[in-house]
Amino acid sequence: MNRLTIRCLLGSSLLTAAVGMAQNAPVEPTNEPRNVILIIGDGMGDQQITIARNYLKGAAGRLLLDQMPLRSTSQILTTQDRVDGKPVYVADSANTATSMATGEVTSRGRISTSAGSDQDITTIVELAQEAGLRTGIVTTASVTDATPAAFAAHINFRFCQNPDAMVDVTYHDVVMGDCSPDLKANGGKGSIAEQLADSGLDVILGGGSQHFAPTAEGETFSVRALAEKNGFQVISTTQELAAVRPGLRLLGLFATDTMPVRMRGEDGREAEEPEPSLLNYLHPYLGSVTLPQPMVCEPNPTFAGMPSLQQMTDTALTQLSHNNDRGFFLMIESASIDKQSHYRRPCGSIGELEQLNEALASALAFAETHPRTLIVVTADHSQAAQLIPYESLFAAFPIPIYTPGKLARIITPEGSHMAVNYATNNFQAAEHTGATVPLVSNTEGQGLIPPFVQQPQIFTITRDYLGL
Amino acid sequence: MNRLTIRCLLGSSLLTAAVGMAQNAPVEPTNEPRNVILIIGDGMGDQQITIARNYLKGAAGRLLLDQMPLRSTSQILTTQDRVDGKPVYVADSANTATSMATGEVTSRGRISTSAGSDQDITTIVELAQEAGLRTGIVTTASVTDATPAAFAAHINFRFCQNPDAMVDVTYHDVVMGDCSPDLKANGGKGSIAEQLADSGLDVILGGGSQHFAPTAEGETFSVRALAEKNGFQVISTTQELAAVRPGLRLLGLFATDTMPVRMRGEDGREAEEPEPSLLNYLHPYLGSVTLPQPMVCEPNPTFAGMPSLQQMTDTALTQLSHNNDRGFFLMIESASIDKQSHYRRPCGSIGELEQLNEALASALAFAETHPRTLIVVTADHSQAAQLIPYESLFAAFPIPIYTPGKLARIITPEGSHMAVNYATNNFQAAEHTGATVPLVSNTEGQGLIPPFVQQPQIFTITRDYLGL
Repeated sequence: MNRLTIRCLLGSSLLTAAVGMAQNAPVEPTNEPRNVILIIGDGMGDQQITIARNYLKGAAGRLLLDQMPLRSTSQILTTQDRVDGKPVYVADSANTATSMATGEVTSRGRISTSAGSDQDITTIVELAQEAGLRTGIVTTASVTDATPAAFAAHINFRFCQNPDAMVDVTYHDVVMGDCSPDLKANGGKGSIAEQLADSGLDVILGGGSQHFAPTAEGETFSVRALAEKNGFQVISTTQELAAVRPGLRLLGLFATDTMPVRMRGEDGREAEEPEPSLLNYLHPYLGSVTLPQPMVCEPNPTFAGMPSLQQMTDTALTQLSHNNDRGFFLMIESASIDKQSHYRRPCGSIGELEQLNEALASALAFAETHPRTLIVVTADHSQAAQLIPYESLFAAFPIPIYTPGKLARIITPEGSHMAVNYATNNFQAAEHTGATVPLVSNTEGQGLIPPFVQQPQIFTITRDYLGL
Repeated sequence: MNRLTIRCLLGSSLLTAAVGMAQNAPVEPTNEPRNVILIIGDGMGDQQITIARNYLKGAAGRLLLDQMPLRSTSQILTTQDRVDGKPVYVADSANTATSMATGEVTSRGRISTSAGSDQDITTIVELAQEAGLRTGIVTTASVTDATPAAFAAHINFRFCQNPDAMVDVTYHDVVMGDCSPDLKANGGKGSIAEQLADSGLDVILGGGSQHFAPTAEGETFSVRALAEKNGFQVISTTQELAAVRPGLRLLGLFATDTMPVRMRGEDGREAEEPEPSLLNYLHPYLGSVTLPQPMVCEPNPTFAGMPSLQQMTDTALTQLSHNNDRGFFLMIESASIDKQSHYRRPCGSIGELEQLNEALASALAFAETHPRTLIVVTADHSQAAQLIPYESLFAAFPIPIYTPGKLARIITPEGSHMAVNYATNNFQAAEHTGATVPLVSNTEGQGLIPPFVQQPQIFTITRDYLGL
């Protein structure tokens, strides 16, 4: 018996089934429905995971996601915004969520629409709904943000999140894009918030109430009211979330936009610029440098009262599985690993990664009692934040050596010091990076998920597992 | 039959053995020796792999290492240089190679010696030799460099590479360290080159002839002559490498220090600093910026005549396996993924990653005819080089957005543009980074290598596979 066989026998409790099969004995079918829980850590590349692990569990510790039995890596694919466009090597959350939701490669900023030709692409949520499965999206971002949106909406530009942001959408007074063709008046499906309100989703939980406040296009009532008319119970507090009774379709909006994060830097600090002395400006070997003071992470006061990602996950799982013999698809996003990294706030990202691991714990607990539940944890793209040496590798040289960009020096609970830099640009928001990202799954992924996948395969793996 | 069982049956040709076991039928043992080929991409984190993949195979392409059937991730562990020291979050190649060679966590700069107490730690090479297995190290660095050294030498400081560099070792006139206690006169084993010359290794191939030129401590002849006296055939050219006949112990030194790399930037260019206009210095929203001109990668002229890593690998495999019924351990290092990244030369790193994949091809071909060969490919630590957006995510804003640090803009063979920055410090050599690194293996690793390992486990996995 070779090692592979031994592993299989040890890894599976169904030796008897295998031997039975070899002897042509009948195998009992099961009627238990299949479920997929796709957990996306937005921007959760290996640097982010390692930074969070070091803080939360120690350098030799393990996060829950580290303990998953199957590991793969996900190759991110992005294209120029034209038909047959050339590859683009760094993605955004819109095109990567589209990959996972539809199996198609598209261009940055697009929500489940095709590059260049702007055609709607059917999502896994829509396929699941057609087949009678329940569906849900849970996120710490606005539910209208790119990642959740791509699973249930179709629009050419991610910022078209509500009826008031459809034409010449501006950000800081700069026109960023336009979604006029998607106006209902033009035969479109309207803004992302309207599409969610009109969707067949059973559970929508996250932030973004501001996008449901405007008047729905062509109506006299708000998008929120549209959702209610379409059968959603709309809630906005942790207390309401805890009191939800199974059976209703649920729209939970717990913040006006992105939900506050759990952790922040000491006194709200983020990464800061090293400050070289005047002499150092004259020559990099001269003078000295003042580095940001080391800091710990602390609870973020504005998180108080917010439901955790785990609480939202628990409610979503209850809603989706209650009296359900057809199964479900649930997307859970820990959004602010990315968003806090754009702001260069490592403690915020660390707290979000902790939230993701708690949500994973709930997913795993659910799968204990619902074994035909495939749990996939992955990221959409890698992100700024590099774990760099606290003491330079070249510290023996008597010159000031320091990082460009911005730097946070973090005192970890195990009493060491960790240096994280953000050095992708000079803008107020850091850039994404382009590395492949981790993908792990529970045992249900074994035999389905190869050790290297292209991100659009996450759609096909999910679709095939659910038999859609 | 569940999916896991199906996978096992499909994945293994030994269904009959499994069923036979269940029926208590006898299983034939095999006398074929076991071999381990450990391939280390120095500094080969996911950013480096993705950058190389994009250039060599395209954004949707796959390197050979991407196609390996088992994937894990390796958690890097480093400690302060004291007994029971606290964790250090970014490693160097000395302590990481020590982890893989000995199973012990040590401090930066140490070559298979313990942190604080400076005790020699037995290496996998020594264990293998004691058990009668053959052993080899192949590298594109000097064979005395940290990674190869840690497999066959013990010294407190990696720069003590030859007898003339043992006391107050300087680099650019700065004293970096001291290895006086390891002088033979003081009862030590001497410099790394001397320890290699005195070692039981069967194959040593790489660069570093300068470290074998000095007079061996206490002798009247060079370290090279010491190696020859100890039974090594010393060669220095590709022609000699091709003409090697099996049976002799082999020391190949093909360059004075690190071997030249295969690829370089156009006209030898490396990453360069963006040059903002004067106005931009006044305020980051003003003025403009001149970015480095895009470039292709080109063959590096100084590589001409060098043996490739694959050629060295092929010779090593022949030497180690010829008339060998006890098996072998071979460490292969693609060293300049790291070294070129320190110099901020993405094309150099890309060419080195290509060399690693070619060496892997040879290893896999060898395993085809020697199936009891475990092939592990991993990195020692992650490294500077971030794949950042060629066009900023925020390009719609009418202000100059550019990266701090240094930037290379590379035209890829598929006709797209890739931006790589190096922004870990302002020194002439970039810093390492701290993320976990990929680990992949061939099917022999299945059942042995979990999806998450601590780097020192690579030693125990290797030791256990070889039965040492």
